Amino acid sequence: MKTIVIVAHPTVNSSGTQQFLKEALQSAQEVKWHPLSWALMQDAGTIVQERRMLHSYTRIIFQFPLYWHQAPALLHFWLEKVLQTTDREWLAGKELGLVVSLGRPLSVYRQGGSVGVSLSELLSPFSAIAHQLQLKLLPFFEITQFYYLSAVQKQCLLIKYLQYLELEQPATFAQKEEWFVKRFRKMLQEQGDTEVTLPQKELVKLFQERAEELAELKAELALMKEEDED
Amino acid sequence: MKTIVIVAHPTVNSSGTQQFLKEALQSAQEVKWHPLSWALMQDAGTIVQERRMLHSYTRIIFQFPLYWHQAPALLHFWLEKVLQTTDREWLAGKELGLVVSLGRPLSVYRQGGSVGVSLSELLSPFSAIAHQLQLKLLPFFEITQFYYLSAVQKQCLLIKYLQYLELEQPATFAQKEEWFVKRFRKMLQEQGDTEVTLPQKELVKLFQERAEELAELKAELALMKEEDED
Repeated sequence: MKTIVIVAHPTVNSSGTQQFLKEALQSAQEVKWHPLSWALMQDAGTIVQERRMLHSYTRIIFQFPLYWHQAPALLHFWLEKVLQTTDREWLAGKELGLVVSLGRPLSVYRQGGSVGVSLSELLSPFSAIAHQLQLKLLPFFEITQFYYLSAVQKQCLLIKYLQYLELEQPATFAQKEEWFVKRFRKMLQEQGDTEVTLPQKELVKLFQERAEELAELKAELALMKEEDED
Repeated sequence: MKTIVIVAHPTVNSSGTQQFLKEALQSAQEVKWHPLSWALMQDAGTIVQERRMLHSYTRIIFQFPLYWHQAPALLHFWLEKVLQTTDREWLAGKELGLVVSLGRPLSVYRQGGSVGVSLSELLSPFSAIAHQLQLKLLPFFEITQFYYLSAVQKQCLLIKYLQYLELEQPATFAQKEEWFVKRFRKMLQEQGDTEVTLPQKELVKLFQERAEELAELKAELALMKEEDED
């Protein structure tokens, strides 16, 4: 699966959140970072290029902050210029995901909250777009109050973000685990065998043993259920 | 009450719907037609002017077609450039209305319909904006499939549109009736007494008599209720 992240942020280079996410993508092999800009959108040749580019990806992600509770004008402009209502023909079957960064906690997006409307409602136009173009809509991925996150919370965000982009959705626990082991192994390989500490090696080993144990337990449970049904 | 209609349509001059609505406004005294354009929005001085202008109006209307189930990029750009989150201070108490033109019938905007999402959901960001700025949100006014309307249907649309812009909302039957008589009288006056036909004069007279009759009946009903309560 190949994923393109279409980033609609008017000042993407000075956004801490967006730069963090961009950095995160450096370790993702099959994910393209594609920031939009007004300058880019003024060029007539861009439209053809943008359309051609979309053909190569099976998962399309729109990534943006909310401005006035909606995607920024830049994304709307891109949608108006690049997509056509007849594009269902070649877009159908691809996946559409949304990565939305919020300055406020998720709890304000509900009845009685300071926004008073749910994020699902605010993002419903994308649900209608997906429906119209026969795209498979993924549950949106929200990033709330990035600036208040601790270093550990940022690491957790990074993992969840990469899994959102790279894994089949919704991802099972086993898939997430497998993703983790692969990543960890790759990281250790890149560090070089001499630099890898014993605790690091032990951790990967432990992680994998646990995964195997879990798989065995699941198989046992399945067997028990089968016997019950007999 | 003074109303401003902020029109966000990238090709407003060639839109039949928008030109019809613009024409309609010529007979409205307290309503300003204010089309947005990309050229206008590029000028730094515009922002200050736009903000100053808003001060003079008590009812702000955003008028637009839906592009990809959302307001056009032009309106999003205007929102991002012109409004500030602190504007509640001076905007609070004003009214916000939406005039939305649709190429499809309203029946597709529901679960199971070809759009699959209600118009209320798609327009929910404006509900959140109104909530945030303490604007009084009016029920939206939709114009569906303008090009298929007959001449009579267009006349009905014109009346409802003007009443949406000019009357207190929600307008009572009596208010609509009064609005009608005033309009009709003014029209006859402008035609000049000599040109007014007898049937026209009779129509106004009849209309007014009916209105008086209705008012009397209402008063009588109120009296009966009062007596019941004694």
